Amino acid sequence: MAKIKVRRRAQDRNEQVARENRKLFKEHGVFVMNLIGSPGSGKTSILEYTARHCDGKFAVIVGDIKTALDADRILRCDIPAYAIETGGACHLSAEMIRDTLKKIDLAGLDFLFIENVGNLVCPSTFDLGEDIKIGVLSVPEGDEKVRKYPALFLRTDVVFVNKVDLLPHCPYDIGRVKADCRKARRTVQVFEVSAKDGAGFEPWLKFLADSRRTGG
Amino acid sequence: MAKIKVRRRAQDRNEQVARENRKLFKEHGVFVMNLIGSPGSGKTSILEYTARHCDGKFAVIVGDIKTALDADRILRCDIPAYAIETGGACHLSAEMIRDTLKKIDLAGLDFLFIENVGNLVCPSTFDLGEDIKIGVLSVPEGDEKVRKYPALFLRTDVVFVNKVDLLPHCPYDIGRVKADCRKARRTVQVFEVSAKDGAGFEPWLKFLADSRRTGG
Repeated sequence: MAKIKVRRRAQDRNEQVARENRKLFKEHGVFVMNLIGSPGSGKTSILEYTARHCDGKFAVIVGDIKTALDADRILRCDIPAYAIETGGACHLSAEMIRDTLKKIDLAGLDFLFIENVGNLVCPSTFDLGEDIKIGVLSVPEGDEKVRKYPALFLRTDVVFVNKVDLLPHCPYDIGRVKADCRKARRTVQVFEVSAKDGAGFEPWLKFLADSRRTGG
Repeated sequence: MAKIKVRRRAQDRNEQVARENRKLFKEHGVFVMNLIGSPGSGKTSILEYTARHCDGKFAVIVGDIKTALDADRILRCDIPAYAIETGGACHLSAEMIRDTLKKIDLAGLDFLFIENVGNLVCPSTFDLGEDIKIGVLSVPEGDEKVRKYPALFLRTDVVFVNKVDLLPHCPYDIGRVKADCRKARRTVQVFEVSAKDGAGFEPWLKFLADSRRTGG
């Protein structure tokens, strides 16, 4: 009983700060995306490719339990990246984002990507103030993940199926995955990509261009 | 403050039940292993291969957020499997295991495998009463996971590096991964396997035979 109350209070607090973040993003005309996927699904690789091919100006906040390895990869693409080491916490919170925003000049940005901690479970239900949640799946993980981790896919406007270059080596029914995504959320857009060789990124780059609030 | 207290109470309760589970396992001479890895790292596939090639008698408890898909796969190998659908919880708890044990005849078993929820973070610090924790990594996830998710690898006596059949298609420094594992826990045993084609399983099957308590 006490446990439930405390949890609810923490969630309420998170939602309040998320609303404040969202207001700030809107005021600055920044479109904000929260990337959620398993460890090694390719969240950082997708951002690296996007960094090299997207016209809009963006920054990245990268959450990791430990190390700033992923933030360093983004920095090497000449994109401002801000590491949050959660020190054990299994997801980012709206408060962590708010604290990091103090370092970021939102006025100059079209997009802000938030790369969440590698975890297909816990980040799903924590609002950070983003416009959309993006789920990142990958072919070698197997094709039943949408069914097994439903909380995320009820909330994703975009899903990447990454590592399609491995389709010849891994049994994977991509039609089934797309159907499961649409069953969870009818309006979802699914992008089949390979961040390794850049296959399939054109529709994603078009989606980004269409999502720009500031008009360039 | 209240949050910390409630969390500590939940952890204390978990540890107490874990001790009771451990006592029960010892009394019945069952060697218990808690498998932890990302979604799609291959925990179930490793158990399927083990089911077909291990002499000892075993059962499997399978935790999943939703569905009993993995438990069904184990059942098809003629191994008793017990699904725990956590309904959202990101890890198994000692109490969930205790409740499931009521259905299992421990006296007839050499081994009990507990396949935790697909999550490289949250299950790491929850003792279920197991003898050892087993970490499951896979090649396409990338070779920096031990550094990025340290809590698990401080506690693993065994680590699988699965999907070595994909080494020709994925950049992966297996030497680095093994060094990182040993740095986290000096005595760890690392098994490089492909659950798809059975490569590398001999040392694991020998490890299991050596771990039998009941003497067959």
